[in-house]
Amino acid sequence: MPKPPLPDELQQVLANPNPSIIGTVRPDGSPNTVATWYLWEDGRVLVNMDEGRKRLEYLRHEPRVSLTVLDGDRWYRHITLHGRATLEDDPNLEDIDRIATHYTGRPYSQRDRGRVSGWIEVESWYAWNGGQPWSP
Amino acid sequence: MPKPPLPDELQQVLANPNPSIIGTVRPDGSPNTVATWYLWEDGRVLVNMDEGRKRLEYLRHEPRVSLTVLDGDRWYRHITLHGRATLEDDPNLEDIDRIATHYTGRPYSQRDRGRVSGWIEVESWYAWNGGQPWSP
Repeated sequence: MPKPPLPDELQQVLANPNPSIIGTVRPDGSPNTVATWYLWEDGRVLVNMDEGRKRLEYLRHEPRVSLTVLDGDRWYRHITLHGRATLEDDPNLEDIDRIATHYTGRPYSQRDRGRVSGWIEVESWYAWNGGQPWSP
Repeated sequence: MPKPPLPDELQQVLANPNPSIIGTVRPDGSPNTVATWYLWEDGRVLVNMDEGRKRLEYLRHEPRVSLTVLDGDRWYRHITLHGRATLEDDPNLEDIDRIATHYTGRPYSQRDRGRVSGWIEVESWYAWNGGQPWSP
């Protein structure tokens, strides 16, 4: 798998408010996947979770993640990023507001729950376009 | 997480040719995710891979998978299935043709590569609708 930085064309795709799915590993060694918002910032990925999410427990146990980003409705084009997540609290909801605004145009609606951010440092990536490697 | 069978409404969603992402665990214990076609048949999930895919190696090492299915363009609605994959060869390409026809209306175009099917027995599931549990 190639190492970062990603080609500009793929970074431009990542900068859009795309559907994405994050994969983590549970303490029993089995995989977990769930759809998530994300933000591509300065070559890193920002995700954000409610403080009650089991995924936080998984990430504290195993920080390695895999994020597959679909190119909007053209989901035969997709980019997968492998990396490690570093967790930090988001006490003022600045991170989730930035992410929510990216996807919905508005700050995050729920204000009464703690949020935790995960910053993912990308270690390798690959991209597919219609069943073939996507090589811009 | 609830056990199968899934509510009828969710099974009807799974029966559509939706975007989906499969999560597996690599032999080094890290997660992998990739977009995939799938078919919901008789309460099981069928996926199919080129014989050269590394994912086959991962699945032989760790058969547990997580599949997140997006409800078409309404991807704020998504269903995740946890289960175990059993691999079997698809010598006549019957499985991949059935899957390709479901998504594209035509049999699979590439006929010169071996294919392997994975049948996923669902052990548990959850579903989200706009950030809330999706409970039909």
